[in-house]
Amino acid sequence: MQNKKGVAILGSTGSIGTQALDVLRANPEHFDLQILTANGNAELLIEQAIEFKPNAVVIVDESKYEAVKNALWSHDIQVYAGADSLEQVVTYNEVDIVLTALVGYAGLKPTLAAIDAGKHIALANKETLVVAGELVTKLAQEKGVNIYPVDSEHSAIFQCLVGEFHNPIEKIYLTASGGPFRGMKREQLMHVTKEAALKHPNWEMGAKITIDSASMMNKGLEVIEAKWLFGLKNDQIDVIVHPQSIVHSLVQFQDGSMKAQMGLPDMKLPIQFALTYPDRLPTDFPRFNFLNYPTLSFEQPDRETFSNLNLAYKAMELGGTAACALNGANEVAVQAFLDGKIGFLEIAEINETTMLNVENVNLPELKDYININDTARAFASELVNQIAK
Amino acid sequence: MQNKKGVAILGSTGSIGTQALDVLRANPEHFDLQILTANGNAELLIEQAIEFKPNAVVIVDESKYEAVKNALWSHDIQVYAGADSLEQVVTYNEVDIVLTALVGYAGLKPTLAAIDAGKHIALANKETLVVAGELVTKLAQEKGVNIYPVDSEHSAIFQCLVGEFHNPIEKIYLTASGGPFRGMKREQLMHVTKEAALKHPNWEMGAKITIDSASMMNKGLEVIEAKWLFGLKNDQIDVIVHPQSIVHSLVQFQDGSMKAQMGLPDMKLPIQFALTYPDRLPTDFPRFNFLNYPTLSFEQPDRETFSNLNLAYKAMELGGTAACALNGANEVAVQAFLDGKIGFLEIAEINETTMLNVENVNLPELKDYININDTARAFASELVNQIAK
Repeated sequence: MQNKKGVAILGSTGSIGTQALDVLRANPEHFDLQILTANGNAELLIEQAIEFKPNAVVIVDESKYEAVKNALWSHDIQVYAGADSLEQVVTYNEVDIVLTALVGYAGLKPTLAAIDAGKHIALANKETLVVAGELVTKLAQEKGVNIYPVDSEHSAIFQCLVGEFHNPIEKIYLTASGGPFRGMKREQLMHVTKEAALKHPNWEMGAKITIDSASMMNKGLEVIEAKWLFGLKNDQIDVIVHPQSIVHSLVQFQDGSMKAQMGLPDMKLPIQFALTYPDRLPTDFPRFNFLNYPTLSFEQPDRETFSNLNLAYKAMELGGTAACALNGANEVAVQAFLDGKIGFLEIAEINETTMLNVENVNLPELKDYININDTARAFASELVNQIAK
Repeated sequence: MQNKKGVAILGSTGSIGTQALDVLRANPEHFDLQILTANGNAELLIEQAIEFKPNAVVIVDESKYEAVKNALWSHDIQVYAGADSLEQVVTYNEVDIVLTALVGYAGLKPTLAAIDAGKHIALANKETLVVAGELVTKLAQEKGVNIYPVDSEHSAIFQCLVGEFHNPIEKIYLTASGGPFRGMKREQLMHVTKEAALKHPNWEMGAKITIDSASMMNKGLEVIEAKWLFGLKNDQIDVIVHPQSIVHSLVQFQDGSMKAQMGLPDMKLPIQFALTYPDRLPTDFPRFNFLNYPTLSFEQPDRETFSNLNLAYKAMELGGTAACALNGANEVAVQAFLDGKIGFLEIAEINETTMLNVENVNLPELKDYININDTARAFASELVNQIAK
């Protein structure tokens, strides 16, 4: 078993989690799956556990503990329940790297626990850095832990920086597909449906991130994530809309040279690179072909219509816990939109009002993030209720 | 003076040479210019020598020796004449890296001499690898010498490989602007003038390479250069026409990920990176801006009309001295076209007839390259004379 990487996958039944398992399934000689966790999809978790035989699984929804336990009793797999168990299993000795594919704020505490235990992180949960980038990156540095980005844009930047970490970055461009509503104006967005928002032109993803893509909050969160991952100032991060999603992002160095990472949209590639860096394993993923993409186009994002993007820059400017409040508000607002309680444009309104009204704590500690997240969610929920009335 | 890199520039009065001096002028703390050489432009060589105070200069045209000697007598600069002197000055102790910016086959012997003396090479003279890639790369490996490409396309590939030299290349794409005659067919090319061929849409370069760009022989030579620089098989090298010349070339790795190096067309950037690798120095070169390039387009090269490209692949297939013969023929044919002796389409015809009729020597040594180059030039000259009659 030596030389195999011990992998924990937090959120194994989601879009990223299942694609990560595809990567592991294709490369059994490189990985040793140790941990699988799911929020509530007990059925798929059981199926995955029986196939991959991890040391332990966690089902966060405690009401499903018995079902999972009973299904796996003969398989020599430890079964735990509850969110707190996530923080335990990531510290196992056999775990070398933790893929954090949880949705939203829930990723923060397990990620911190993994870093504290010296585990490298394959970060698919951008909210961890959005909410508490200062704390997380400082702890990672102290513990000598590497954070490998899984988001396709940040993986692109990271791939472009390989071998060049000593060369100062002048600027990065995060590319954005523009989502399903690119080119629309506010009056058109007023009555768009959840079904329309969930139809992303290029990427198959979970519901939360797909809505965030449609509202450009996702790109805003990515800007904040990039700030912490690559140690950048606000004005070093630009966003460019690129509808084909072939150029996944670009770095500009101080000599003016730019490097881009490209390819067909396929999350398995950044997932795999995060798990195998600095090596690249052969794959049978479909290859990009210029004949199918005779033009690649680029345009400025419409920051007036998709105001969430500017909110993210505002949060970085404000510092402290502003991004934490923004993220908390957005999680509530997106859920309210998915539940049919608010309109699409009200997501950004709730985000802005919440961020500007909830207290901003400077030099925050973990308890401050927890507190501001709770406060922001309560504040945003109140706004949702007012609208829904 | 410690930590400064000792630089020899072969061909300092040409397009690459003068731009290299711009780079050195902007970074006096990093470079110590040791050697300047020119073919026949004594006036500019003298001016450069007085400004940069190298240890030695070479004027290849011996009839200009006295003029250069007299102009520099008070400046403590050694003055040599003749092509053989190039092979001497590159071996000076103070020289760390030799920028070979000579035109054509003339670059081969001084480059071999520099490698033999253990000097790193910044290679702007692609013909050296085209003619004798097997011999040159073998010697460089034996001597522990690095060859840093200066051609923008090969620099792009090299930049994309930084930090990834251990990862197998699946494929590279060399981009081609398509030159001034892109989209034209044979009947239109029959009567194009030298003036039209010398108008490159994106790059300011010397006459030989500009004609080679118009005929796509340049891209063919680059394909062969790439084969030797990066150790590739013929079918791992593809060419894609990209009229904007912003994406300078691309690498595809075995996981399917592609990396591209991009920027405004400016040879100073690849020249500088070849001299400063692995570091990037800050520059004030104009930056690329997406707003000025809302679309980047890509198309297949027209290999029927611009048959020189296929000749290069044929030369690689034939191996031995075939590429040497092709290059020798092309140097003669391009000069004949510039002299008004032959038409544009006859360049490729002379290249093909020569390559297929001159003897092909397998496992060639230096003397074979010299012999085949002479033979091919004589053969091609004879074809020129037949046409010019």
